[in-house]
Amino acid sequence: MKLIIDAWGSDGGPQEIAAGVLRALQSYDFHAVFVGPKAAAEPLLEAYPNRVELLEAQEYISNTEHPVFAIRKKKNSSLVLGLQRFNEEGDAFVSAGSTGALLAGGYFITKRLAGISRACLAVTIPNPKGGTVLVDTGANMDTTPEILHQFAVLGSAYVEAQRSIRPRVGLLNVGAEAEKGDRRSQETYQLLSESSLHFIGNVEARGLLAGDADVVVCDGFAGNVALKTIEGTASTFFHALKDGIYADMRGKLGGLLLKPVFRGIQEMYDYKAYGAAPLLGVRKPILKAHGNSSADTFALAIRDAVAYVQSGAAEHIRELVEGEFHESETN
Amino acid sequence: MKLIIDAWGSDGGPQEIAAGVLRALQSYDFHAVFVGPKAAAEPLLEAYPNRVELLEAQEYISNTEHPVFAIRKKKNSSLVLGLQRFNEEGDAFVSAGSTGALLAGGYFITKRLAGISRACLAVTIPNPKGGTVLVDTGANMDTTPEILHQFAVLGSAYVEAQRSIRPRVGLLNVGAEAEKGDRRSQETYQLLSESSLHFIGNVEARGLLAGDADVVVCDGFAGNVALKTIEGTASTFFHALKDGIYADMRGKLGGLLLKPVFRGIQEMYDYKAYGAAPLLGVRKPILKAHGNSSADTFALAIRDAVAYVQSGAAEHIRELVEGEFHESETN
Repeated sequence: MKLIIDAWGSDGGPQEIAAGVLRALQSYDFHAVFVGPKAAAEPLLEAYPNRVELLEAQEYISNTEHPVFAIRKKKNSSLVLGLQRFNEEGDAFVSAGSTGALLAGGYFITKRLAGISRACLAVTIPNPKGGTVLVDTGANMDTTPEILHQFAVLGSAYVEAQRSIRPRVGLLNVGAEAEKGDRRSQETYQLLSESSLHFIGNVEARGLLAGDADVVVCDGFAGNVALKTIEGTASTFFHALKDGIYADMRGKLGGLLLKPVFRGIQEMYDYKAYGAAPLLGVRKPILKAHGNSSADTFALAIRDAVAYVQSGAAEHIRELVEGEFHESETN
Repeated sequence: MKLIIDAWGSDGGPQEIAAGVLRALQSYDFHAVFVGPKAAAEPLLEAYPNRVELLEAQEYISNTEHPVFAIRKKKNSSLVLGLQRFNEEGDAFVSAGSTGALLAGGYFITKRLAGISRACLAVTIPNPKGGTVLVDTGANMDTTPEILHQFAVLGSAYVEAQRSIRPRVGLLNVGAEAEKGDRRSQETYQLLSESSLHFIGNVEARGLLAGDADVVVCDGFAGNVALKTIEGTASTFFHALKDGIYADMRGKLGGLLLKPVFRGIQEMYDYKAYGAAPLLGVRKPILKAHGNSSADTFALAIRDAVAYVQSGAAEHIRELVEGEFHESETN
């Protein structure tokens, strides 16, 4: 398996990404094309000369640049060079850089699947029922019911490939009844009801945490709000716990006894441990790692990319997308 | 002070509301008009004959009815009778019934303030910086930038009256830069930048929990997603903590030692302890209590109504709304 790795764009810079790749090489079976500056690649090339190749790229696209313009203009950026190589070879592409630029690169360089007008980022919210995949979590704003229908098909195919279940698909909304929500939600409800998916109706945001559905579909704005609210609430909780624990001796003793419990919960809700989110709807597997990935987090992102390739999700998604949208056209 | 209390519409029925009113009468200084069935009112009339009056109403509007039709058709419902009385007298109206029906009643019976086209529900998210008021939290879908501007003025005036500060107003969005988010957010950003408010720019959902702004403005869809995600995350946390604590003796001892810490955090995030949310933008104070209010929660809703009236927020909001929208018109 060969992974193309964009070394630029994370908050920690190419050194941090290289350290993550090094850790991942020790644990998982893959070859890497490291797309970035030579200096950062050197420890990798030294330690694993047969498994790592350098594709030199000194230029990068930042979060503040206009994604589409940047993709067109910066021909020597790690993202553009990396995705071009990915068109020739490689099983997955991993980047911790700008989400917008990655999306634009996915559209214009990797290209979309037939029938898909927008690609979406799929993040798995941990919960007691095996996790809920939320699509989209911030790649697309101003979506239409037709686009949300595409996200539902992509998300469902992804979960089916990962877990071998017939996924329960829900629509993120403000109440259970079909007529709830804004106009977009009401129209999407109708489209999903008529689709071949296992649509179980509206799911409130609480249901993401409870696992009321295996896949929950929403516009990237709402998905981003949900995801960042979970992060914010989790972080606030741990701060409040820490303050309480360090306040006195009784707290300290209690904290010591409950340390394993806290650690378990913290790991579950630490977004830095989420690894990478796949960009669904493009022709080949592209995965987005967190922008402030540490070396450890980036190693987890690579773990997710390896698992994604091994699951055969990409082929499964292509088949289901063809099935769903071919069917719709003939109806 | 006189409160008009809608006894119908909560999950627990009029008895539960009556029990809440009884508790509140013991703690706070107010007179009540209890709008509901005679049987439920009897203990109140017996205990406080000089402070409670019954306005009999056997009919009610449920959550599943179309709000506007129900308001027009059910002339003898507790909501319609109560709001009509509220037009004649009373300092605040409190209901745990259907949000949609309360909004419709506010529009058609109580009426809106001049310059306001939609009323919004204001919920205070607890945080270390004195709380963040989120407007709207679910009363309105499909809002426009002009409506969000109104919510910003209403929310800012509300916080100003409550806390005597010049509130920092933020726009809920997916990133900090002005061009982030959907079209509505981008246009609202412009409107708020040109307003007389202390607009501090975009705030991500994480910022609600951190207290990055005193008022955060959003469409009711996103506000509802944020609010229910906080509830869901908090509830998941406490379940995971409880499971860990009861797993073994070590956990039980740790749990016992940290009980006061847990209780403090739980109280902070228990939406049942939030009391009532004011409906901002109507001519007189209307407050919405949680639909599954217990007697204790409804007593807190009355506490909030009393505090709201005492704060003089209603007059302050009217003045600021007139100032902002008069100014806009003459510009």
